[in-house]
Amino acid sequence: MGKRVLIVGGVAGGASVAARVRRLDENAEIVMFERGPHVSFSNCALPYYLSGEIEESETLVLMNPDVFRNQYNIEARTRSEVIAVHAEQKTITVKNLDTGDTYEEAYDKLVLSPGASPIVPPLEGVTSEHVFTVRNVVDIERLQGFVSKQAIEDVVVIGGGFIGIEVAENLVHAGKKVTLVEAQNQVMAPFDYDMVQILHKEMIDNGMDLILGDGIQSVKADHIVLASGKTVKAQAVIMAIGVRPETSLAKEAGLEIGKTGGIKVDHSYRTSAPDIYAVGDAIEVHHKITGQKTRLALAGPAQRQARAAADDMYGIPHRNNGVIGSSAIQVFNMNAASTGLNERTCEQVGYDYDVAFVIPSDKVGIMPNSNPMYFKLIFEKPTGRVLGAQAIGRGNVDKRIDVIASMIMMHATLEDLKELELCYSPVFGTAKDVVNFAALAGLNILNGVIKQVRFNDVRELVEQGATIIDGREPGEFKHGHIKTAINIPLSEFRQRLDEIPTDKPIYVHCRSGQRSYNMVKALTNLGYDNVYNIAGSYLGTCLYEYFNDQQQGREPIVTNYNFR
Amino acid sequence: MGKRVLIVGGVAGGASVAARVRRLDENAEIVMFERGPHVSFSNCALPYYLSGEIEESETLVLMNPDVFRNQYNIEARTRSEVIAVHAEQKTITVKNLDTGDTYEEAYDKLVLSPGASPIVPPLEGVTSEHVFTVRNVVDIERLQGFVSKQAIEDVVVIGGGFIGIEVAENLVHAGKKVTLVEAQNQVMAPFDYDMVQILHKEMIDNGMDLILGDGIQSVKADHIVLASGKTVKAQAVIMAIGVRPETSLAKEAGLEIGKTGGIKVDHSYRTSAPDIYAVGDAIEVHHKITGQKTRLALAGPAQRQARAAADDMYGIPHRNNGVIGSSAIQVFNMNAASTGLNERTCEQVGYDYDVAFVIPSDKVGIMPNSNPMYFKLIFEKPTGRVLGAQAIGRGNVDKRIDVIASMIMMHATLEDLKELELCYSPVFGTAKDVVNFAALAGLNILNGVIKQVRFNDVRELVEQGATIIDGREPGEFKHGHIKTAINIPLSEFRQRLDEIPTDKPIYVHCRSGQRSYNMVKALTNLGYDNVYNIAGSYLGTCLYEYFNDQQQGREPIVTNYNFR
Repeated sequence: MGKRVLIVGGVAGGASVAARVRRLDENAEIVMFERGPHVSFSNCALPYYLSGEIEESETLVLMNPDVFRNQYNIEARTRSEVIAVHAEQKTITVKNLDTGDTYEEAYDKLVLSPGASPIVPPLEGVTSEHVFTVRNVVDIERLQGFVSKQAIEDVVVIGGGFIGIEVAENLVHAGKKVTLVEAQNQVMAPFDYDMVQILHKEMIDNGMDLILGDGIQSVKADHIVLASGKTVKAQAVIMAIGVRPETSLAKEAGLEIGKTGGIKVDHSYRTSAPDIYAVGDAIEVHHKITGQKTRLALAGPAQRQARAAADDMYGIPHRNNGVIGSSAIQVFNMNAASTGLNERTCEQVGYDYDVAFVIPSDKVGIMPNSNPMYFKLIFEKPTGRVLGAQAIGRGNVDKRIDVIASMIMMHATLEDLKELELCYSPVFGTAKDVVNFAALAGLNILNGVIKQVRFNDVRELVEQGATIIDGREPGEFKHGHIKTAINIPLSEFRQRLDEIPTDKPIYVHCRSGQRSYNMVKALTNLGYDNVYNIAGSYLGTCLYEYFNDQQQGREPIVTNYNFR
Repeated sequence: MGKRVLIVGGVAGGASVAARVRRLDENAEIVMFERGPHVSFSNCALPYYLSGEIEESETLVLMNPDVFRNQYNIEARTRSEVIAVHAEQKTITVKNLDTGDTYEEAYDKLVLSPGASPIVPPLEGVTSEHVFTVRNVVDIERLQGFVSKQAIEDVVVIGGGFIGIEVAENLVHAGKKVTLVEAQNQVMAPFDYDMVQILHKEMIDNGMDLILGDGIQSVKADHIVLASGKTVKAQAVIMAIGVRPETSLAKEAGLEIGKTGGIKVDHSYRTSAPDIYAVGDAIEVHHKITGQKTRLALAGPAQRQARAAADDMYGIPHRNNGVIGSSAIQVFNMNAASTGLNERTCEQVGYDYDVAFVIPSDKVGIMPNSNPMYFKLIFEKPTGRVLGAQAIGRGNVDKRIDVIASMIMMHATLEDLKELELCYSPVFGTAKDVVNFAALAGLNILNGVIKQVRFNDVRELVEQGATIIDGREPGEFKHGHIKTAINIPLSEFRQRLDEIPTDKPIYVHCRSGQRSYNMVKALTNLGYDNVYNIAGSYLGTCLYEYFNDQQQGREPIVTNYNFR
């Protein structure tokens, strides 16, 4: 007889452990217990059912228990909740949710992959029929049935993370009037405040109402009340504030829980009890860059953890590289991706870091569908080690972030990144790729070759009456410029040096930063010693200011927004 | 006064040197000499003018001499051919191609960036008016004018490299009947013979005539004659056999030429003569993986070389990582990309290598526009070092190849690749990315956990009467299968072990390789010791056989081709 391997949870982590154990051992007895009616469904694809992009909810279920049995000789017991783990006896107690019966099962190895559950604060009205969470296929079918059948018009989504935004967007596509409410001053925590303004703009441009810095206080029959007292019409409310690791079973079994609230595991995803492993959203993991413990609810790492745990049962050594946190999202026509640390996390950990911000074309400018890509690269000082990156644009941001993620995993510096030889055709990119470009900009900053301020500093510069030079051509200046900027094009500045003061700081920008970089270098070489490039230039300034100006009704610092 | 820097050639390499020198030195005197009428045009985008994807040929010229002068204080002399270099005197002789006058110019530093010229063998008729090459904007305007104005119907392109295929495809889009002739038995040398069949199929499926293994013998007024004696109707002929580095100027100046035929340069792109640099398609470069000298006509490396040469003039040290050869091409609806070594180059260099071939989905299978991606990963034995990769599919192959290119640059092994944490959303990819998947498959081979044959071996297996098991479901089998295969689905094989012989080798496949991998592992664990996975499975077999069957009219080994 082979090992008896029991698995709590039958989605990403659990199903992967089961399949891997079977590949390692044809004789193992493998049983997966899943509380819900489905195993092995695609959580990440759930929101796309709301818009009809995924047409049939059955397709969300990737493999049913029959397939597990027939193809892999794995028993998948659905509607079966594991309600207790007896670590000393090496048994679990299972409750059949259809009959209410409970029974015990013995294991040689037990794997906990219970996942994480949506956080629903105990507010007035949150248990109403028209309040939803989105965790599984049943949830999304129920939500879809509700919003489509009852001619629901106004929907509120609480929470601006991945699930909140994806649900909100798909409901917009389904024709709903959607308000997204986020308690922080920005959506999508993996992105910094400056980058995320592009997503804020994209959401409101596509008809979504976006309320930031306000939380939910109570749910009424046809509206919600926010912490600010404001009310928002809503015949349906989706709670997507965040998720909490499912640790109750582990806690009751006496397993150690980490400081982050996830189940504590070692190199091989063993818990504190012998022969019990834990993987997926419920555990705490090692962050490769910071060395700190963290939690990360992503499918890719869960699959790697599952494989490692299975391997460990059979004495196969494996690496544990920790996590860096790579993710991507589509928000209407904008793609956004990030990896590694953002500025907020750098500050929390106390890293000495700096930032390159560039806006190159995502492919050769003369090709159709060439678009600017907003790219932020974060690196350590003085080492130049790559710490993280964020990219947003209409083009293939995920490609560039995957390259950065690879480079972070390999401990790369800006010098390594600068030298990368990536594949190029005008159809796919540019000869000097976005990531090469960002590395060069970063090295200029790291080496002190150029000084910069950033587009989020521009309003303050304007208010202080700083000397801002716009290096674009007069035709571009005419179509929109920073109100206090002087237009001295790159093509004329050598003849107009007398207009550039030598006794105070000069801040130079153009459209995307390329021409201003050249002007700053030239002025510095000519002896101007207090010249700054405005990273992000006019494009970045417009994107940064646009949303806040709209929301706050404040006076724009530009004569006309320009986003091309 | 600053340095006097003269540059021969005003396209990728030359223009980049000029711009970089200016950024380093506001006082340098910089003059670029270009034989043609344009500097700084996009060679790589030229073919897209033929189909109208790029509408105006003027846009192909990225910067004209006025912009160089005004923005960068760089003098760009077009229609000016440098006809001699006097290395001892540090002067050059320039011929004004409009007036015929010659004059001398002195330099402190000279940069040769003459590029490479299309090879045109001295055949009968090749100097005719209807024979073209494609190197610059003048060429493409002339070709476009010819094929559009004279109601040309039949066009032959000689050569199946990047330019040949891109020109041929764009002429198909322009409504021409196009025949592509290639002397080798495959197009696109960066790809191995097995992978490239997908491109062969795509070209013929899109109405292109493809003649392989045959060369051009002579050009007649309305047809060409091939080496085989065959004739092909052609009112226009494009010669795209390859390029030859422009070294005549360097040779006459006494500069050392490398064994590969390119100008020899050192770490800093200095030639054998003092104060003379050379960059771009005319030089020979160091191959990072093989350590051999090679030539590589690509824009990205040219730009990096240009920057390094300029830096060296100012005493700024730089890295020279050599090249790995990353490239990409779109062929109708297929995208193809490659990096590093292919099997042919591995064999030439004498590497001990093996191959993982996988066909995962490019994004989550239930999302719209999910497609199989054909992915080949080449690694060194016994180290597992990643040597190269090739990817073809409808989706974003360039992303996966850029990741592999990054990993090669960082000396990664399969273990590193397996652990990569890439960004995932169902819109962009799969939780276990294509590259993770390929690394896992590669490790199974490297570790001897699984034995494989490949889809290009299937015909021989069929002819030998080998035992081939098709692990797909009966419904799939019915729609097309290998003629001699026995259908034992993964879902039934445990009950049908008596049908699987134990006394001879067993070859297992399914659709893409995932189910057959599981069956092979199970059979091996059950004690079958001579079981092979057919890498590439049914999809790969169909793609590999299809084109050759069509071309050679040979008997298919499958009952029905299936490409989904």
